Amino acid sequence: MAVYTDISEEELATFAAAYDIGDVVSCKGIAEGIENSNFLLRTTEAAYILTIYEKRVQREDLPFFLGLMQHLSARGIACPTPIAGHDGAVHRLIAGKSAALISFLDGIWMRRPTPSHCAQLGETMARMHLAGADFALTRPNALAMPGWRGLFEKCAGRADEVAEGLADELAAHLDTLEARWPSALPYGVIHADLFPDNVFFLGGRLSGIIDFYFACNDVFAYDLAVALNAWCFEADQSFNVTKAGRLIDAYAKVRPMDEAETAALPLLATGAALRFLLTRLYDRLHQVEGALVRPKDPLEFLYRLRFHAGVRDLVAYGLT
Amino acid sequence: MAVYTDISEEELATFAAAYDIGDVVSCKGIAEGIENSNFLLRTTEAAYILTIYEKRVQREDLPFFLGLMQHLSARGIACPTPIAGHDGAVHRLIAGKSAALISFLDGIWMRRPTPSHCAQLGETMARMHLAGADFALTRPNALAMPGWRGLFEKCAGRADEVAEGLADELAAHLDTLEARWPSALPYGVIHADLFPDNVFFLGGRLSGIIDFYFACNDVFAYDLAVALNAWCFEADQSFNVTKAGRLIDAYAKVRPMDEAETAALPLLATGAALRFLLTRLYDRLHQVEGALVRPKDPLEFLYRLRFHAGVRDLVAYGLT
Repeated sequence: MAVYTDISEEELATFAAAYDIGDVVSCKGIAEGIENSNFLLRTTEAAYILTIYEKRVQREDLPFFLGLMQHLSARGIACPTPIAGHDGAVHRLIAGKSAALISFLDGIWMRRPTPSHCAQLGETMARMHLAGADFALTRPNALAMPGWRGLFEKCAGRADEVAEGLADELAAHLDTLEARWPSALPYGVIHADLFPDNVFFLGGRLSGIIDFYFACNDVFAYDLAVALNAWCFEADQSFNVTKAGRLIDAYAKVRPMDEAETAALPLLATGAALRFLLTRLYDRLHQVEGALVRPKDPLEFLYRLRFHAGVRDLVAYGLT
Repeated sequence: MAVYTDISEEELATFAAAYDIGDVVSCKGIAEGIENSNFLLRTTEAAYILTIYEKRVQREDLPFFLGLMQHLSARGIACPTPIAGHDGAVHRLIAGKSAALISFLDGIWMRRPTPSHCAQLGETMARMHLAGADFALTRPNALAMPGWRGLFEKCAGRADEVAEGLADELAAHLDTLEARWPSALPYGVIHADLFPDNVFFLGGRLSGIIDFYFACNDVFAYDLAVALNAWCFEADQSFNVTKAGRLIDAYAKVRPMDEAETAALPLLATGAALRFLLTRLYDRLHQVEGALVRPKDPLEFLYRLRFHAGVRDLVAYGLT
């Protein structure tokens, strides 16, 4: 919830002049997204999102992220589309930072997703996985399992400040995950951050997916594992098996899953919980004085991690 | 820069159903404004601002604020207009807090105002003062001179943490202001917070004024005194006499100022500088752990206060 980089009227005018988008009518910073600065830009022709990439997004990754959005849009996956300037470029500098102009996607994210929302997410996720098959660029998952050990070690010494015994508990889970992580599951382009705030609905129907800035090549089922964490727990941390079942069923109807993928779900979901726990823990312990973003609670994902680590039968995910 | 209150899809749908505004297409929190939560709401018909009033705005003041915006709009002053619901009401509860739906005002605020912008502000400010003459409601200025002593006393003990000698310096200015504050200047409805981020421009022309939540009855020239502080100092704290001259001249062309008003400007501007210094100092010293807003620097206004306190001749403001 922040705008890290403000832009002057001159900088905005110079930027907008690089595009065929009409005259700027308004430009307001949006209080969503915690990694980049986003502005809702309205012109005499349409509404756009102007994204200024802050330090987490590397300029060399922009062709992958922006190219993927163009690729998926062209294949009928509803997502924002980067706009090319007169020079054909889809990103350029503003206020000394890389920025892109992206089509505005209608819709609202669901603060309280229902089983129907989860089913629609599953279907769209599978269509997205299929549509990414012929995308030419690749990008490794910077937050994949092999990186968790290093992240853990940067937090381990102070993890017990957040919860007593946390370091030991995480170390044990990490050992298990490293020993048992599957290596040969179906693989392709995934979103890797499909939380509810990245999925828009309009009139009860999924209207699109946003924020591809964690997208990468990894096992498809890991996207489902993230969504099991992000969509299927209630506010009291109870697991909603109906939502999980609808999510996975709808996914598998579009892209049938093999037995190894389904069987790996508890382990992948445990890993996904650990990944978000570790980044939140890192952010909590390395909080910058005066930061504009309130660090999210890492412990939410401890409860989720424990749940997935305890799953012995896929019935727990609503599968039969 | 914050959204303090998030709203669920159900709360939004219930709220929107109270108005004749078409179907909601998107709703995004805006990273502007530090007192209330603001959302840019787009529907199939138009764009609106949905404002949720946080604790600083008292519910009993809403008829004054919202009524004033309606009153000024009806008299040709470009400002957002509250939208009435089917029930005729212009404010109602959402998420347990008072909220209003307000027309969207096109334009961008100037990060680097020019003398032309200052002149346009002066003209519009004067027209606004005249247009407010027949507004029926009144509201005292909650941050007027008589309140500064109390605010100062809440900060005095720790003021020197921010700058050495600050408490003594402010006490001396406060004594002078209390002793010499003018009592019989032309009086009416003022905005009281006309900073650049509350004034929009489009294609170089002033397109409107927003954020009337400090509006009150006070001497007209105090609005000019605030603007002298907010629009006429450069980033290096130097005073731009050309901007000041254009601001005051353009104002006085629309609403001629009597000699006492003009003569009082240095004192009023010193007072306005002290008012913003004191509220910023208070916020700095009473900063809440984990707050989403970075407190603004009180010392910016110390330099401005010293400048105005040293003005002995109105030539310093570009007047001849």
